[in-house]
This record gives sequence, C-alpha cells and structure tokens, in this order.
Amino acid sequence: MDFTGAHILSIEQFQRQDIETLFRTADAMEPYAQRKKMTRVLEGAILGNMFFEASTRTRISFGSAFNLLGGEVRESVGAESSSLVKGESLRDTARVLSGYSDIICMRHPQAGSVAEFASASRVPVINGGDGSNEHPSQALLDLYTIQRELMTRGRSIDGVRIAMIGDLKYGRTVHSLSKLLCLFRNVKVVLVSPSELAMPETYVASLRDAGHQVVVTDQLEANISSVDIVYSTRIQEERFQDRQQADLYRGRFRLNQAIYTRHCEPNTVIMHPLPRDSRAEANELDADLDSNPNLAIFRQADNGLIVRMALFALILDVAHLVDKYAQDVRWFNHRSRS
Amino acid sequence: MDFTGAHILSIEQFQRQDIETLFRTADAMEPYAQRKKMTRVLEGAILGNMFFEASTRTRISFGSAFNLLGGEVRESVGAESSSLVKGESLRDTARVLSGYSDIICMRHPQAGSVAEFASASRVPVINGGDGSNEHPSQALLDLYTIQRELMTRGRSIDGVRIAMIGDLKYGRTVHSLSKLLCLFRNVKVVLVSPSELAMPETYVASLRDAGHQVVVTDQLEANISSVDIVYSTRIQEERFQDRQQADLYRGRFRLNQAIYTRHCEPNTVIMHPLPRDSRAEANELDADLDSNPNLAIFRQADNGLIVRMALFALILDVAHLVDKYAQDVRWFNHRSRS
Amino acid sequence: MDFTGAHILSIEQFQRQDIETLFRTADAMEPYAQRKKMTRVLEGAILGNMFFEASTRTRISFGSAFNLLGGEVRESVGAESSSLVKGESLRDTARVLSGYSDIICMRHPQAGSVAEFASASRVPVINGGDGSNEHPSQALLDLYTIQRELMTRGRSIDGVRIAMIGDLKYGRTVHSLSKLLCLFRNVKVVLVSPSELAMPETYVASLRDAGHQVVVTDQLEANISSVDIVYSTRIQEERFQDRQQADLYRGRFRLNQAIYTRHCEPNTVIMHPLPRDSRAEANELDADLDSNPNLAIFRQADNGLIVRMALFALILDVAHLVDKYAQDVRWFNHRSRS
Repeated sequence: MDFTGAHILSIEQFQRQDIETLFRTADAMEPYAQRKKMTRVLEGAILGNMFFEASTRTRISFGSAFNLLGGEVRESVGAESSSLVKGESLRDTARVLSGYSDIICMRHPQAGSVAEFASASRVPVINGGDGSNEHPSQALLDLYTIQRELMTRGRSIDGVRIAMIGDLKYGRTVHSLSKLLCLFRNVKVVLVSPSELAMPETYVASLRDAGHQVVVTDQLEANISSVDIVYSTRIQEERFQDRQQADLYRGRFRLNQAIYTRHCEPNTVIMHPLPRDSRAEANELDADLDSNPNLAIFRQADNGLIVRMALFALILDVAHLVDKYAQDVRWFNHRSRS
Repeated sequence: MDFTGAHILSIEQFQRQDIETLFRTADAMEPYAQRKKMTRVLEGAILGNMFFEASTRTRISFGSAFNLLGGEVRESVGAESSSLVKGESLRDTARVLSGYSDIICMRHPQAGSVAEFASASRVPVINGGDGSNEHPSQALLDLYTIQRELMTRGRSIDGVRIAMIGDLKYGRTVHSLSKLLCLFRNVKVVLVSPSELAMPETYVASLRDAGHQVVVTDQLEANISSVDIVYSTRIQEERFQDRQQADLYRGRFRLNQAIYTRHCEPNTVIMHPLPRDSRAEANELDADLDSNPNLAIFRQADNGLIVRMALFALILDVAHLVDKYAQDVRWFNHRSRS
Repeated sequence: MDFTGAHILSIEQFQRQDIETLFRTADAMEPYAQRKKMTRVLEGAILGNMFFEASTRTRISFGSAFNLLGGEVRESVGAESSSLVKGESLRDTARVLSGYSDIICMRHPQAGSVAEFASASRVPVINGGDGSNEHPSQALLDLYTIQRELMTRGRSIDGVRIAMIGDLKYGRTVHSLSKLLCLFRNVKVVLVSPSELAMPETYVASLRDAGHQVVVTDQLEANISSVDIVYSTRIQEERFQDRQQADLYRGRFRLNQAIYTRHCEPNTVIMHPLPRDSRAEANELDADLDSNPNLAIFRQADNGLIVRMALFALILDVAHLVDKYAQDVRWFNHRSRS
C-alpha cells in the first residue's frame, strides 16, 4: 500500500509490510507523544475531525495526535449533522467538507458510511468507526501493543498465543484484530465467550485458513493458562436488540489478580480496548489488577496516540520530516513525573 | 466602508466598491485555500466561533478560514447557551465573550440578535446567520461565485441574467443576493416559485428600482432558456408553521440533465446554496448533473472559504501581510489529486 | 505551594504567598490578554478542556487563556461522556485522557469528582467546577479583581470592607471567596441574604477565626453604606430542590443607580460572578449601572482570562519564559477601540 494520500477504511487494506512500515513510524513518534521533544511539521495543516457519533476518547485521541504533529483541528461532535437531516447525501457532505481540511477522520453510526463519504472526498479519509463495521485504527493500535509488549519479553507477533474474551459476536475490535493476525505466522487464538456471543464463523475460518490454531470455548480459567496475551472485552450492550439480554452475559468472564496468579503464566499481558466496565455487576478486569505491571490497558491507550500520529504522518507524507521540524519542549513535562 | 474593525451584519453595508475590494482580496486567498502555499499571518489571533444554532458546514467553513490564515478558533455549538437561560442579556454575553477573542462569528436563531450582540462587543462581529434575517457571507460567496463563473465565460455581473428557483419567500439567500444585485447594472432576474412562496415584494421593488428587469413566474422550464445562471434553492421546511405544508412544494421544480439539455443555453451555470435535498421526493438538482461541468455548487462552497478568509483579512487589517507570512506547504496536497 | 506540575483543586491549597505569586504573574499576563503583544511560549502544548457539564464562558475563558499563551486546545462539552455511561470509572477516564494532553481543565457536576480524576491523572488538573463543591479559579479571579480595583483607590485587600449579597447558601463563589479572605488581615464582611439562604455557619466561623468582623443581615440598603465592595450574586435556582421556591427570593436584593447614589460611598466597587439575571423579575444589577465606572463586572470577567493564563504559566513552569517568546501583534487590535 502507498500510504500517501490514501483513505484508511479497513484493515483489509494492510499487508504485512504495511504494518511494519506503520509500526516503525509509530516507534519514531513516541518521543513526541512522550513530550521528550515536539514537532511543528504539520503547522498550518487542518484535520476535519468529523464525529457524527459521539466518542470522546477516540475523537480526542485523533485530535491530539494531529496537534502533536503541529496541525490544527476543526471538529463536529454527535448528531449535529443538520445537513444530513435536510436530505443531503453523504457524497455531497463529503464534497463540501473535504474543501475545508487537509485530511478527515470520520465516525458515523452507519456501516459503510465512511467508505461512501470517502468516495466523494477530495482529501484522505480515516475511518474512525462506522457502526458495526470497522474501526481500523483500534485494531492497529491493539496489534502494535501486542508487538511492543511481546518485544520486552523477547517475543514477536509471529508465534503469539492470545485469548480473546467476552463479547466476540458484537465486539468490532476482536474481529479486526483476528483479521490482522492472519498476516502473521504460527498464531494460537483462544476464543472465550458464551456460545451465543461466539466469534462469527467467517473470522474463525480466516484464522484457520492462515494456518493458525483456534480454540473455541466458553470456559475462562482453564483456557488462559498457556497464552501470552489475555484480551478482555466489554459486553457491547448498545448493539443488542434487547438490552436486558446483555445483562445475562455481563460479569460472566471476570479476571482479577487471584485468578491471574492461579491460572496465568508469569508476565501474561492483559489488554482491553477500553472502556472497561467497572460496575460491580460487570467488572471485567478487577481494580486489583491495576498494580500488576502486566496490565497493558493504559499503555494500549497511549499507543493509540502514536499509531494515529503515524497514520497522519504517512498519509500526509511527512514522516521523513518530523524530526527536521523538531523543537525542545519548554514546559513542565508530565512524563517525568511517573 | 472601512473594513478595519468593522462588524459585518448585513449586506446593506456594502457598496459596489466594497464588493470589489472584497473579491480582489478573495482572489488573493485562493492559493492558500488550495494549499499551493500557507500563511501564518494570524498566528496568535483567536476567533470566537459562537454558533448558538447548529450549522456544521458554516461553522467549519468560518473556523477553517481562520485556521488557513494561521489563527486559533474557540467554539460554542448549539443551544449550550446556559448563561442566556439564566437570564443574561445578549449585551452582557457580548461584553464577556468579546474579551476572549480578537473577532467573533456568531449564529443565533433570533432575527436581530447578532446586531444587538455586536452593539456591546469590543471586537468585530460577523453575522453567521440570525434566523430569518441575514446571512451576509452566504450572499457574498454567491455573488463571488457568479462573478468567477461568468469571468470564465467572458462575462461580468453587469448584464447577468439569473433565474432564482424554489422557495423565494423563506429563502434568506435569494433575498440577500437580490439586494446585492442592485449594486450592479442591467441585470435580468427571473423569479420562479409557487405563487405562495413568491419573492417578497420589497425585494422585487428594489430590483426594479435599480433598473433591473424582473420576471415573476411559476413555470420553470420555459423560463430558464435565456439565463446565464440557474440558482436553485431548497424548500425551507424549518421556516414553515405547518411542516406538512412544505411537502406540497417539495419537488415542484426539479432540474436534471435532460431538462438542462433541452431548455438551457450551453454553459448555463447551476448554483445552489446547499445542502441540496437529494431525497427522491425533492431532488432539486438531480445527481445526473454531477458530471456537468457547469454545476458550480461545490465550487460555490469552496468559494465560501476564500470569501470568509478575505473578510477576516480585511476586518483584522492583515490583507496586505498575508503573502509576507507565506510558507511552503510541506504535506501531501490534496488539490493535486483532482 | 510549588505550582509546577500541581493540581489546582481547591482554594484551600493557597497560602497568602501563593496568592501573591499568582497575582504578580497575572499582572505580567495583562499585556498579552490586551493584545499589546502576543507570546508563543506554549506553542506545541495541549490543554484538555474537559467540560462534562456545560459552561460556555468558563470553558472558553480557559481555552482562550491557553491559546493566548500559544497552546492548542482539545475539548469535550456536556454530557457526551459516553465512556462513563458504559461503566468506566473516573480514574480510568483520567488515566486515558491524561495521555492526550499536557494539562487538563475539568468541570463535572459531581462534588469531589475532579479530585478523584486528578488522583489518577498523569498531568496537572485544574478544577473548573465540581458541582456544589469548588470552582477555585473563580474565587481567585474575584480576589484579584478586588485587589486591582482597590489598588486604583489606594487601598489593598488587607482592611477591605465587602458586602456579599444574595444567595449565600448555594453560591459557590462567595464560599470560596470567604475562605480566601481568611488569608488577609482586618477584613469586614457584611453578609446580606434572606435568612433561608444565609452563608453556612462554617464559612462564617472561619472568617471570625481569622479575626474578621462579620455582619449577618437580611437588609440590603442599610448595609451597603460603609463598604468598599458590593459583591452581588444570582439566586442559584438550579441548586434548589424545588425551583419554584427560588422564585420567592429572586429580585429580593436589587441594586440600581438610585440606590447606589443614595446609600453607597463614592467609588464603591460593584462586582458579580456573572451571569447577572437581567429578567425584570430578578434584575440584581440594573442596566442603569452600566455607565457607572465602578461597575467592575466586566473587568472581573477579563481578569478571569489573565488569572487563568497565570495558572497555566505557573503550573507548566513557563511564567519566566513568556516574555522571551513574545512577538508583536500584527492584526487590528480591538483594545484600541475603547
């Protein structure tokens, strides 16, 4: 894939070498995200951060990533989309809005809407989530987190053993991550869910076609003993027709420090796409794991920022210029606190 | 008019020479909007983009225009105006908010509200639409589009023949455009609407007083055969007391490629203030016109950006400095795609 | 207090010398707020302006203050807090959001929420108002206004005589201001309210413990004749269980020019945290006071901007660098109009 000027609509666009290019670029972004230095490379550029469905953290992650490269951000939040109400087509909206910025990130509740929008846009469009369909930057940051966590353990994505836990039917992130794992070799995937919320067969088939070992189960504890990564997810209650039905599954697979100690190998990485549901009846990942250094969920969120910086830098073709426009950080650097 | 520090509340403020100054300045903004270069002339300046009524595209057009000049944007969106709910006067709101920025763009649902706000503001205020009253930057961008489209046809606004079509009663844009046309010579205006949605007499009288030829009709096809511009509009259903009544008129005047070919002179320009209603029951401008090079509706939206840049540059008295603070664009330039 | 990297959660954190440091820094900010010059000292820094409860003016005041120092602003407005709805803890939200910016300003409807958020944040957090609890920057700007107004009268905060008027029970600002006044000497505080809306005893006791003279009364006119400052407040109807009860008190204590002339000493300063309720039934401060040069309410709002700039500059440890990164203002300077 040539990143320059490309729309990022689906993880299907990525080949293994694209992943490698992206992750190498992300590595180079880290000092900027950590405020060891700053860059003005995108000074004067404008991101149109069009969130036609609310999502505070994803929206701010994209916006901050663009600011960290020196650019400006114009935004739309939530169902303000008055023009759509007045009968405007998504393609017309795209033709107009794409004149206002250099790149657009768009979230929209309707599957396929972002691709339709992109087809009429004059600037590159990144899919920030289109309903039940895709949220490619989430899958990329998940995979990047896996790579980085494994690297500190002397391992790599090839050969990884990962358990995906929870709502594997509606969870967009585990679907996309499964697809990305097909680009690697010798992976073991353990799918832990209630049978009613099992991973759709198409994703299981893809994993098997890639030569990977797949275990399907509804038992948590027996199945997290031989994995490198435990990837926990939230019950996607907003995707259920009957929300009360979601209550049946909430809290079914809980991980806490005692279970971790008893069942997991030392240094098993714990991931979660966040938000984790911390209400007593759910509590997917207990707060007593917060002091476990293998809990990677907040590093995962931080990685989102640098993966998004890398996407912007590659699409706008400035990755090679980021350091050229670097400056010292003059203000109190919060990272020096931790 | 002296633009420096002026409030822009109404198109009534503009004389012909002001229009010429504005359009000459807009021409100079185009390379920046098209990303052939960028400028930092307003680096450090702040726009207060106060939209007390939602309007994604107008809000973002103003915000992006300010960013394109190098400035920052603070925003308010929608009915968040909690202070007004607590009994604050518009003049108090203006006194406070005008301390927070160098210039304000304001949209508000109530006619006259922006002028009242401006009367207490310490910084220049641009009317971004005050209910059924005015939306001057829209009228200016419409006129600018007419000038530019005609120029490529070897014509000018003097002598133009224009058909305005649709809801001429509630359509704010056609009212303001009519007034602006009074500043020019030898114009022919064809007003096509259901009689119940006819152009108010005051605007018709002004056009006639300016010596212009005015044709009032409810027939579309016979009346678009001898014009340079077809300006189509949407039924403003939100201004109807009874919204179902709006349904009676929706779809009454449709233009498509077949009608265009049969009735219009070659190269007749098609304009629309957008959004166009693309629902089957309305479909004012059919999608089969999208490949017609005379469809100027998206160029019109792009012109909005540069006209707004020009307004900012003139009001803040930096029009002569824009080029001095120019820099090269370092990132992927989307305009090179088309 | 060491400002560098500190959370600002409560006015209880401030000692007298901290106030003096802050106000000295605020004085140095004024030329920037007044656009006599501009500074790029925080170029590249990001403020996370997280308003989980709407407040247009406070939000924009913080955002503009950060822009005035050269920084960027990412924002959240209103009850968009979808992650909290999905069961995320405030501490998780803090861990994630604090990776996206260099400093956070947060407003939230729940008392104590900002402190809880701050406890998990990796960057400094400023409390922008947590329900009925605190709003420290408002108290600081009030005190700064008192100091500045008195200074032009050859007086200082030590020895000040102030009448606080209106809803002293629910009014967060008078509570915090009372606490700050305990850091000074020889203050006289006249508390004018309906007995049902009296200042809570704890604040009265603190004032008395500080050696201050406190007068508690429900009579306005007899009690504003020997004060330097009249601090009027709005009935906080949104804090009443029964909003109709608030109507009983609205309009009880009105100040207008006739009352001012008859009862107040010359040059008595009039303050109000704003918004003032200008509806006929309330009208706490009549519009006929607007031409009274002692009406300080809009200077008070302007002071909010420079106090917030000072907080940012001190917390991020750039107060000493602001002038080093100063530049000339190139655009039309609105302050030169008045």
